[in-house]
Amino acid sequence: MNPPSKILLVIIDGASDRPNEDGTTPLKKANTPNLDKLASLGINGIMDTIAPGIRPGSDTAHLSLLGYDPHKYYTGRGPFEAAGVGIEVKAGDVAFRANFATMDENGIVTDRRAGRIRETHEIAKSIQESVKLGGAELLFRESTGHRAAVVFRGDGLSANISSTDPNKEGKPVAVSAALDEGKEARKTAVLVNEFTVQVQEILREHPTNVKRISEGKHPANTLLLRGAGLVPHIPDVEEKYGVKGAVVAAAGLVIGIGRMCGMVHLPVEGATGGMDSNIAGKVERAGKALDDYDFVMLNIKGADEAGHDRNFENKTELLCKADAELAPLLDIDPENVVIVVTADHSTPISVGNHSADPVPIMMINRSVRTDRVREYNEFAAAEGGLCRIRGMDLMNIVMDLTDRAHKYGA
Amino acid sequence: MNPPSKILLVIIDGASDRPNEDGTTPLKKANTPNLDKLASLGINGIMDTIAPGIRPGSDTAHLSLLGYDPHKYYTGRGPFEAAGVGIEVKAGDVAFRANFATMDENGIVTDRRAGRIRETHEIAKSIQESVKLGGAELLFRESTGHRAAVVFRGDGLSANISSTDPNKEGKPVAVSAALDEGKEARKTAVLVNEFTVQVQEILREHPTNVKRISEGKHPANTLLLRGAGLVPHIPDVEEKYGVKGAVVAAAGLVIGIGRMCGMVHLPVEGATGGMDSNIAGKVERAGKALDDYDFVMLNIKGADEAGHDRNFENKTELLCKADAELAPLLDIDPENVVIVVTADHSTPISVGNHSADPVPIMMINRSVRTDRVREYNEFAAAEGGLCRIRGMDLMNIVMDLTDRAHKYGA
Repeated sequence: MNPPSKILLVIIDGASDRPNEDGTTPLKKANTPNLDKLASLGINGIMDTIAPGIRPGSDTAHLSLLGYDPHKYYTGRGPFEAAGVGIEVKAGDVAFRANFATMDENGIVTDRRAGRIRETHEIAKSIQESVKLGGAELLFRESTGHRAAVVFRGDGLSANISSTDPNKEGKPVAVSAALDEGKEARKTAVLVNEFTVQVQEILREHPTNVKRISEGKHPANTLLLRGAGLVPHIPDVEEKYGVKGAVVAAAGLVIGIGRMCGMVHLPVEGATGGMDSNIAGKVERAGKALDDYDFVMLNIKGADEAGHDRNFENKTELLCKADAELAPLLDIDPENVVIVVTADHSTPISVGNHSADPVPIMMINRSVRTDRVREYNEFAAAEGGLCRIRGMDLMNIVMDLTDRAHKYGA
Repeated sequence: MNPPSKILLVIIDGASDRPNEDGTTPLKKANTPNLDKLASLGINGIMDTIAPGIRPGSDTAHLSLLGYDPHKYYTGRGPFEAAGVGIEVKAGDVAFRANFATMDENGIVTDRRAGRIRETHEIAKSIQESVKLGGAELLFRESTGHRAAVVFRGDGLSANISSTDPNKEGKPVAVSAALDEGKEARKTAVLVNEFTVQVQEILREHPTNVKRISEGKHPANTLLLRGAGLVPHIPDVEEKYGVKGAVVAAAGLVIGIGRMCGMVHLPVEGATGGMDSNIAGKVERAGKALDDYDFVMLNIKGADEAGHDRNFENKTELLCKADAELAPLLDIDPENVVIVVTADHSTPISVGNHSADPVPIMMINRSVRTDRVREYNEFAAAEGGLCRIRGMDLMNIVMDLTDRAHKYGA
């Protein structure tokens, strides 16, 4: 018997849409000969990544697509962001997303993004080295741009505390407060406030900020924390499915979700996640990774951003580009690999944000029951042989298709 | 940004069917140009109002269509009937459906419907005014024909008691008994029996009955209670969805469900719920209600009754009539309103009762992904872009379509 097929899960982030006034969508309008060819070779359908009518975040959607019920495992964005920047989070840690920001001498936030600072590496190093907290260990790492992740590790912590981000400029940095009566929440709120004070002290005269001020730029003289989450215990994909998994993605959040689920992140040069991202490099990397891993998740960003920007032309163009770069998928032998192409959610131009409209999904493999669908888009997919499935079912279907599923009963 | 779209949910009660020996159904056979036009403008599918293979009652189906899990909220028919006749039920009340009936001098029920009496208003008034119960307040109201609703309000009541309806003639009025060991059930059973005795006393010489006897008609000299239910706490549609809701319906049960869910009942002259019902008036009322309400549920009766009567021709004719009266739906601007047309369940001619066969559903709005379906019937709908959904998903989908849904995650 042959070894089980490998699995390549391609997620075109935010690809699907609602029809515009001409009754079309970027995916339908885009010239996508490669995706259309794949559709004609496979089985197609539509998918509610969480459930019909439930608007997914990128985080909850990806968890669901990996077969992890977000109602059980999604405790907030912090843990996944922290894992995404490479912090090895553990169950029980409390993690946050953070912004480097600018405040004035009265502690009023004047720029929530510190002039979109990019040079945060030295600052982050100083914070990691100099902050000393009683009762918890600090794990701090910068992310892209003005972003960072903060993790507190110690006994008896809680994520049920308020954030320090005032959410708008012109307001002071907020004091974190416990949101329940427990001593864990109080302890954690005290830690967060102590951390914030120490960080402000470290940043006040930091060389990076001295330089920025001399250049007339906004200094990164405070941190704003939000998205607190207790790191959950997540069984990894090897334990859950018996597969070795890898993730190829530019977005820290997606990388973080992959890592939290025990997948190895495979970095790609020039993978920025934007319109200019090195999609070809990611596709190549993901294809090669099938030699070493059973399951590879490839996330392609760009369409989602164009949806958030409400830019029909950019979204269409990004999808054309993605299609061209995905041409190597046609060279993958459907005898040995299950290729799944889908999206994590719709990001309609008319909404400018995620919607619950189902996403098109196709599976290409020798074992699938092919259908009459000949194009990859929202309309054609709904006529396919998969009918309508849920994100939580996807991995189970794929495990069955690759003969990895266990029989339930006798 | 525009205000969110309004929502019009049209439920053609019991519309769908199983094929007859010619392979057709009343809905397929009926000439329905307006519904067919709507199908061609929208997205279509089939829907299990509760779950595949679960035969819905009208009550459980409507709850499910409104997004209220009947397994949680359906405690019996009594509460919804009582709300339907206009009793302002409260969580914790125990409510019943009741029949006015005729018994002989030995207490044997000789006519469960008291000669299909209609003049029950004075009798009901006498009961409400004269019955005095220890330990509970009585709320009594007549319904259509020989029907009425009874509510007991007080501390420590239970619906876990047997009914007093013997279910067939030739048997005595049944004594209500506690169905568990708790003192609440015993107290309530005693109340019901005490209530029945007092009602029989009041009715014995009641002028309405004296007149009926003189006319050779059966007197309404007892009440038969059934469908006991503890009134549940139901969050209203404004709390649950952030919408102001209204219901246009003839059936007390549907009105009651709407009211229990916090929707306002908008009465329509001549809306009887039968073949002769003023459907046009209901459609007009529902359409106008969209000016004042975010969400309007319109229930059209008739097809269900024809199904119960196993009358293919009448059901077909009713559906033709409903189609003609629904023509104004075509004048509603799909930019600003989501129109949903569906049924609460199938009532197949061959069964003469509700079945679990899925119902056709269509949604018409600028944001939906249109499909190739060009007719509104059970067969065409199954080829539509919605594929197969569940009743509990409907409101979530509509809330997402009208941009009212909250994002889950980030």
